[in-house]
Amino acid sequence: MTILLASVGNIPEILLSLLIMLIAAKLLAEVFERLRQPAVVGEILAGILIGPSVLGLVKPSEIITTLAEIGVIFLLFTVGLETKPQAILRVGGRAFVVAILGVIVPFIAGYAITFVWDGSKIEAMFVGAALVATSVGITARVLGNLGLLDAPTARIILGAAVIDDILGLLILSVVSSLSKGNVDYYELFKTAGLSTLFTVVIATIGANLITKYAPKIEKLRIGEPFYIAGLVFCLGLSYLATYIGVAAIIGAFLAGMALAEATENNHDVHQKTNGVMEFLVPFFLVNIGMSLDLQVFKEISTVWLAIIVTILAIVTKFIGCGLGSYGVGWRRSTQIGVGMVPRGEVGIVVAQIGLGLGAISPPFFAAVLFMAIATTLVAPPFIKWAFANEDAAYDKIDDDDAGGILPKEKLSPLG
Amino acid sequence: MTILLASVGNIPEILLSLLIMLIAAKLLAEVFERLRQPAVVGEILAGILIGPSVLGLVKPSEIITTLAEIGVIFLLFTVGLETKPQAILRVGGRAFVVAILGVIVPFIAGYAITFVWDGSKIEAMFVGAALVATSVGITARVLGNLGLLDAPTARIILGAAVIDDILGLLILSVVSSLSKGNVDYYELFKTAGLSTLFTVVIATIGANLITKYAPKIEKLRIGEPFYIAGLVFCLGLSYLATYIGVAAIIGAFLAGMALAEATENNHDVHQKTNGVMEFLVPFFLVNIGMSLDLQVFKEISTVWLAIIVTILAIVTKFIGCGLGSYGVGWRRSTQIGVGMVPRGEVGIVVAQIGLGLGAISPPFFAAVLFMAIATTLVAPPFIKWAFANEDAAYDKIDDDDAGGILPKEKLSPLG
Repeated sequence: MTILLASVGNIPEILLSLLIMLIAAKLLAEVFERLRQPAVVGEILAGILIGPSVLGLVKPSEIITTLAEIGVIFLLFTVGLETKPQAILRVGGRAFVVAILGVIVPFIAGYAITFVWDGSKIEAMFVGAALVATSVGITARVLGNLGLLDAPTARIILGAAVIDDILGLLILSVVSSLSKGNVDYYELFKTAGLSTLFTVVIATIGANLITKYAPKIEKLRIGEPFYIAGLVFCLGLSYLATYIGVAAIIGAFLAGMALAEATENNHDVHQKTNGVMEFLVPFFLVNIGMSLDLQVFKEISTVWLAIIVTILAIVTKFIGCGLGSYGVGWRRSTQIGVGMVPRGEVGIVVAQIGLGLGAISPPFFAAVLFMAIATTLVAPPFIKWAFANEDAAYDKIDDDDAGGILPKEKLSPLG
Repeated sequence: MTILLASVGNIPEILLSLLIMLIAAKLLAEVFERLRQPAVVGEILAGILIGPSVLGLVKPSEIITTLAEIGVIFLLFTVGLETKPQAILRVGGRAFVVAILGVIVPFIAGYAITFVWDGSKIEAMFVGAALVATSVGITARVLGNLGLLDAPTARIILGAAVIDDILGLLILSVVSSLSKGNVDYYELFKTAGLSTLFTVVIATIGANLITKYAPKIEKLRIGEPFYIAGLVFCLGLSYLATYIGVAAIIGAFLAGMALAEATENNHDVHQKTNGVMEFLVPFFLVNIGMSLDLQVFKEISTVWLAIIVTILAIVTKFIGCGLGSYGVGWRRSTQIGVGMVPRGEVGIVVAQIGLGLGAISPPFFAAVLFMAIATTLVAPPFIKWAFANEDAAYDKIDDDDAGGILPKEKLSPLG
């Protein structure tokens, strides 16, 4: 039977790919849970295993990447739904310092090692830029699984990751411009201004706006009006974020945060959003694993470069963010330091842009790719360890420790 | 800023398309709800409006089609979750008669009109085949919105749609073989046997199997084990259905039905599944609308053909299924008759296969495409009308009326 009634597009083939990805991810997640290791590591390893490098059961495709991207958008949206804006704004000053130092230290390290390794100046800047941006999805997933998203340090990590993404964007645009020979300062300032404005506006007045319109949304005749409005808001801000130039997940996180107050007691909206997230996130994690091409490491010098870049990426982010959180105590500095380590898909994107511009050579590309996946694999056990028994340590960290970006009087009156 | 940190694949463009589709679908759904018309009609019209034929805001793509297909799979999965196997088996005999007559009458009509319109014999058989298969997604959505999925006639419609799909598959494979000049009777019997076996086995013992393994699933360490197991089961049976040759949605429906007992009191699993369904179904409905190319109707004779084929499709399905349900009363015969009218994507697929094999000419293709969308647009208001005040008429219809496919003693003991 070669003619299938259901064969619009490649539906059977796609269904099979999704099935294999989901089963592999959850099997290894179960094994890792039983070994008391983070499930995310199992799901990423499942991707390496079934991907082109090892078994070749599933071929990466645009459709899988799209589902993965929608998955991580929903992941950050659900994280946002559990985060009230003031919780982030209250630690804003601290998060800002953590982000700045967590950007400067890794950039310098990436620049230096590339220079030592006979790379060009532009190449050095690209590797530096790739070491900068934290991928908050992994940390959010680990903390979510542990039920610790509202721990004080979790909020600092989330806030710092948002700021970090904006800084990373600015560095990338400078580096890209330099590689093409000119820097458009007007464009640069516009991007910086727009992305900061976007974040601050949504974080400060988004919740008020939603709360104001909530009664009107509830009155709509369509089924599940609040869930549908949430979806529109999530997709809308995710798109707007990419339009301005920051990652879609930043928009999704801000959308969730703006909705946090209004949906706090709406169990069904949370369950529905979680349903989409739990369905799609495995594809995000497996897709990270599948993107690793082990072929690249035939040359032993590339292996060494990859290992050194990875160690630098881990150590410098840990030290930078740890220093940035000076004064909150060793335990919490450690939590923040390890929480910012995963680079995930953001590092990969920077490397891809560098390769596309002809600015970095294949060995550096391979090393950065390895670093992005390795930091993502290595961090979760440390995050789990650093946050062990956190329930006992739920004290408040706020502007008294570090100075906020907003005076307390200006916080949302709904807080 | 042309270099976007988030531009893996075409994420910004896809996000924008999804956003436009979702907003357009829900705006028109709201308008239709206020006019007391079915929301699905609004969502399909939204697709025609934003698609290439009118505004051209969104271009149909493989990614959108995939999301649409996953959407209709989840739609039938959630319908299955609300349908206990015995409820269908009890009306099995009745559903079988409805399906058979609902297949024969439209096929003859499609064959006849094509012959009258100077089509070839093969062409006549393809148009006949395209008129056969009911697309149960639309009816299920309308009844679900009305909260009437457990009405007795709703069960007959669901059961008949499953049988109807198998019959449609067999007709399509005969017609396809004939158009290539030979019929492989071995393949044909294999397909018939496998698809019937698949349906009967899952419908009769699926629930027992799930109930037996439920305690083991609950003991898994991964988060949300029952939801994840449900997803695996849904994707697995959907794939298996396409592998055998029936539509993926038949597998999804059977998977949901097998899980119905075990998840009956699991509000969270239902909410999570609904979350995915509510997110993706608008893309399914909008995508149907977008597939209509109004350009085809420049020739007035094609318009007439399309109108005649559509009227025949509606009248013959209504009469066939109405006759098949003889004896249950006028009101219920009417409900079953109109419930089976929508052809939706199944008719489109048959026409596409015919076009691909060079078996049907463009005017007939256009007419069938129009018929598929028009029956889908026309049926919902009639379904809504036929089921109005149904709450008052919740009496039992079972084998006493029409003879079931299983004696009552053999029904699942868990019922």
